[in-house]
Parts: sequence; C-alpha cells; structure tokens
Amino acid sequence: MPRRTGGRDDRQFKMVLVLRGELRLTAGKAAVQAAHAAVMLVRRAETRDPESLETWLGQGQKKIALVVPTLTELESLERAARVRGVATMWVEDAGFTEVPPGTRTCLGLGPAPDTELDPITGQLDLL
Amino acid sequence: MPRRTGGRDDRQFKMVLVLRGELRLTAGKAAVQAAHAAVMLVRRAETRDPESLETWLGQGQKKIALVVPTLTELESLERAARVRGVATMWVEDAGFTEVPPGTRTCLGLGPAPDTELDPITGQLDLL
Repeated sequence: MPRRTGGRDDRQFKMVLVLRGELRLTAGKAAVQAAHAAVMLVRRAETRDPESLETWLGQGQKKIALVVPTLTELESLERAARVRGVATMWVEDAGFTEVPPGTRTCLGLGPAPDTELDPITGQLDLL
Repeated sequence: MPRRTGGRDDRQFKMVLVLRGELRLTAGKAAVQAAHAAVMLVRRAETRDPESLETWLGQGQKKIALVVPTLTELESLERAARVRGVATMWVEDAGFTEVPPGTRTCLGLGPAPDTELDPITGQLDLL
C-alpha cells in the first residue's frame, strides 16, 4: 500500500465489527449491535487511546462489518486481539426481542491500524 | 408508560437510525452506516447535550434501526426533527463500494426521549 505523507500517522486505521452469524439477527438488529460496539469502542478510546481515535476520525472513521459462524470463533478473535494489544469490546444484548438477555451478539475491534487488524480479521466474510 | 423513580430524568431515551431502503444496501453496509450515525451523534452530544447523552448511556444506550423507502422521506424526517429540536446527523457514504461518493445513506436522531422521537419516527418500519 502506498504511504501517505503529511499525516501524523501514515497507517490506515479502521474499526471492525464482527457479528455472530448463528443468531440469524435481522439486518436492523445486526445494525444496532454494530452501532453499540462502535459507540463503546469510541468511548473507550477517548480516554485510553485518544491518538488512535483522532487518527481514525481524521481518516473518515472507516468501519467494516464482518461475520463469523459461532461464539467460539468470536472468542478466538477476542483472544487474538488481546495478544496483539488491539482494543476489543463485547456487545451483550439486553434480550428484549430476538435473543435471550446477556447473549453475546457482536465483538468490536479497534480503532487500530490495518496492519494490526488484518492478521486477526482479514480472512473473515463480510456481513 | 409507567414512570421510573429515582433517576435524574425519568423519560426513556433512545437513538434512532434510519436507513434509506432504495439503496438496497447489504446488511453489513447498513450496519456500518448505522454505526457511523451513532458515533457521530454521540460525539455531538458529548459537547452539545451531555445530559441527554449520560441519561441515554445510563439507560443502556437503546438504539433502533428503521427504514424509509427514499431520500425524500429521510429529508422529511430531518425537517420534522429540526422543528422539534431533536439532534440529527446525516451519514454520507464515501462511496468506495456500493454507492456513489457523497450518497446520503442514513439519518440518525437523538439520543432523545421517546416522547420526542416517537411522533417523528414511531410509524416507520423496522430495518
């Protein structure tokens, strides 16, 4: 990838929102889970990683929504992210509608550079 | 609706994320647009309406994803929200994949009380 010049960080930052396919959420429910994860990751980054947050916002806050089949894969992603020091956030649904209360529906990762996220989530399917 | 007691604001707050159906976005693309709107509404509220933001976060940051057929309906919602003083946020897609750059894909509203949002969005379909 060509390097940009003039920025304070020339890596491309993104946020990855991974849904749990086996729950067969509606498009609307999936969108809400992804939005929960994004908001919580931003709130976390405001205090714990403001530089990554500002870089990501300045680059247009790129987000991508992916899917894995089961909770097992989601948990593997979370462990892989932790090993690499990438921020993660679980979404547990309040369970008012489609799933029981406390169900883990989504794992959010980032904002972090492509170079850190792609080894973890680069092989997953688009939602 | 029964009123809760003990809170600093006993109204139920939510955020509404309205997608533009005619674009026929994939579930993943719709989720990303909704997440963009949610993040930008939160960032806005942090400086311009921190009390509503804190109430909404404290109540579990309820979000709902809805759909309207066309941009015309989305623009009508935006006007209705403006009249009522409800915060709104347009999402314009960067256009890398499914739509041309600058396409308005989503309108976010809130966080605001049910009593302010429902007259604007209460009749819309779930995404």
